[in-house]
Amino acid sequence: MTTTRPLDGIRIVEISSFVASPLCGLTLAQLGAEVIRVDPIGGASDVKRWPLTDGDNGAPVGNSIYWTGLNKGKKSVTADLRSPDGQALVQRLITESGPGGGILVTNSGGRDWMSHETLAALRADVVTLELLGGSDGSPAVDYTVNAGLGFPFITGPVDHDGVVNHVLPAWDVVCGLYAALAITAAVRKRDQTGAGSQIRLPLEDTALSIASTLGYLTEPQVNSQGRPATGNDVYGTYGSDFATADGGRFMIVALTRRHFRDLVEVTGTTDVVAALESALGADFSSETDRFTHRKVLNALFAGWFAEHSTADVEAALAGTSTLAQRYRSFDELVAEGTLATHPLFAELHQPGIGTYRAAGLPAAFDGETYFTGPAVELGSSELG
Amino acid sequence: MTTTRPLDGIRIVEISSFVASPLCGLTLAQLGAEVIRVDPIGGASDVKRWPLTDGDNGAPVGNSIYWTGLNKGKKSVTADLRSPDGQALVQRLITESGPGGGILVTNSGGRDWMSHETLAALRADVVTLELLGGSDGSPAVDYTVNAGLGFPFITGPVDHDGVVNHVLPAWDVVCGLYAALAITAAVRKRDQTGAGSQIRLPLEDTALSIASTLGYLTEPQVNSQGRPATGNDVYGTYGSDFATADGGRFMIVALTRRHFRDLVEVTGTTDVVAALESALGADFSSETDRFTHRKVLNALFAGWFAEHSTADVEAALAGTSTLAQRYRSFDELVAEGTLATHPLFAELHQPGIGTYRAAGLPAAFDGETYFTGPAVELGSSELG
Repeated sequence: MTTTRPLDGIRIVEISSFVASPLCGLTLAQLGAEVIRVDPIGGASDVKRWPLTDGDNGAPVGNSIYWTGLNKGKKSVTADLRSPDGQALVQRLITESGPGGGILVTNSGGRDWMSHETLAALRADVVTLELLGGSDGSPAVDYTVNAGLGFPFITGPVDHDGVVNHVLPAWDVVCGLYAALAITAAVRKRDQTGAGSQIRLPLEDTALSIASTLGYLTEPQVNSQGRPATGNDVYGTYGSDFATADGGRFMIVALTRRHFRDLVEVTGTTDVVAALESALGADFSSETDRFTHRKVLNALFAGWFAEHSTADVEAALAGTSTLAQRYRSFDELVAEGTLATHPLFAELHQPGIGTYRAAGLPAAFDGETYFTGPAVELGSSELG
Repeated sequence: MTTTRPLDGIRIVEISSFVASPLCGLTLAQLGAEVIRVDPIGGASDVKRWPLTDGDNGAPVGNSIYWTGLNKGKKSVTADLRSPDGQALVQRLITESGPGGGILVTNSGGRDWMSHETLAALRADVVTLELLGGSDGSPAVDYTVNAGLGFPFITGPVDHDGVVNHVLPAWDVVCGLYAALAITAAVRKRDQTGAGSQIRLPLEDTALSIASTLGYLTEPQVNSQGRPATGNDVYGTYGSDFATADGGRFMIVALTRRHFRDLVEVTGTTDVVAALESALGADFSSETDRFTHRKVLNALFAGWFAEHSTADVEAALAGTSTLAQRYRSFDELVAEGTLATHPLFAELHQPGIGTYRAAGLPAAFDGETYFTGPAVELGSSELG
């Protein structure tokens, strides 16, 4: 059964590279839009980005797992973007594509031939979204944005002398989703009012906005000091990681007094924790007190984890309300077969890469997970 | 000048707590929707979540910077959600609110009185979005989801024996943005077809979907091995962090051959890098070769950074194409005055917290940044 997807009838042209703008296009394609990625002949600078196939499983060596992953379900057109003819072709593709068209997403702004003004002169209700680095137009990527923002100083072991980058390009992902949201909101506005929109979205601003909303940039403004590093302990509540007797590791979070009581019971520390609570004048039903005294609590619970096997810990915690998760590598997650039965995943035959389980859109509409087809070969779709 | 925001006329009821669903509501409020957060009397379990005010700057001690930050610009209604009268009131608030209403966002699903079926019987075109932990309904939070997914094994110093949690609750943020997108897409579908939507969005699925799209879950399926830890080095291209003579630190990224050539020139390593390239049989115009030989390159460039002050490094790199950013703490970023002139930020008078610079929506529409008012006092808005 195929239902109507929310963005059926919408056509988007994406002139993009790297993570944020291709993720925007992919997400809109999952929601039902026709997305046409336009690249220079031979591809943009991300066409061979790592990770690449290594020739295992019979696929050719050196194809981009990254590029095919982010460009699933799109059409692909290449054109000479430096020639007037190529530019005119792309302008027509953007502006002449019916009532659901007239939408451009790009991270290659600053070019007159594809500026909002130029396109709006050809089609008044055009919607353009330009992804930038900094709001002043300066270039920036996820790793430089993150470095300027404070997170690397409070990530990683508390005694580590240095900074720790995140591995997940979180700001690229966040920016791509803001872009998909902004386009969808602009489509809704155009449906209602007939007006187009010119949207500017700097990568750096997505990071600043989230850091502001979550309080990281508010603390130094209204408090006498900012956020301390807490290693793997969750800030402001009780949560930490523990090693088991056979080298396993668990993340444990006790947000509520019930979560915490269950953790105390399962670790057999009821009497010790009560004595500690009394001696410290603490109230462990309070999140604040559990956080304040976390190091003592960590040390107490660590003994139980260190004496039990990973399997025993998993079994003991399964019957409790405490939030617990064994740390797993990507390899383990895949080897355990999690993806084989998970409703978010379906088999994808990806030319050049192989057959694998690929995720759809995480938001399921009326019980349906929205998948797309594979990425097509660069430049293989017909223009117009 | 006040323009029409994309979600003007939309009314959303949010029964929420923690990060993801309140961020969804805030984002929709920034886009112009009327958002009514409904809480149990006295507030949900996040009403006193850290960070709290510490009494500096004259604000009272112990108010939640977190709660006010995530609930800006919303109405706040409290009701006895366990009583039939309270439940009936909330049902009416959701379903009787005109053509733009009938929309519920919640992370408190599994209750019959606010299920999609119950609400759809009262209003056929209702849109509901339920945020879950795992897709099987099991509880999960950002830190447990991340632990199960592989990232903590490849984050942090390569020689660190253990796992490193991210500090930014990236999955909560990603989930909140997917939720805002899904609601906006469902509004567009309802505008077009008259049909409501029942949306399910598990936190864990947002993480699995992004990890799949970015290739982390594809590598173990099609390659012989998964992603190695690379510390602060960017995977698959050239990027690393460097310490200066006076204790500063820079993140440097060279994605293109021009970025790399400028880095080589500024560090005065042209001859050495050329000799190295020849001796290794490498081609440093290739991203792959720059990544493969990154440790030698890191060591070469590190000498120049260690011999120069932070100010000298900043000045020298400013004239180049190389992507560079000095690592700054949250305190430094605020102390430097960045927020005072940044167009994304405006002064906010937040009762209970103080006056500070708060960010608006990072996507600017037609040159306008969308701000909201402050968070109102819990339960202070009129119901209906």
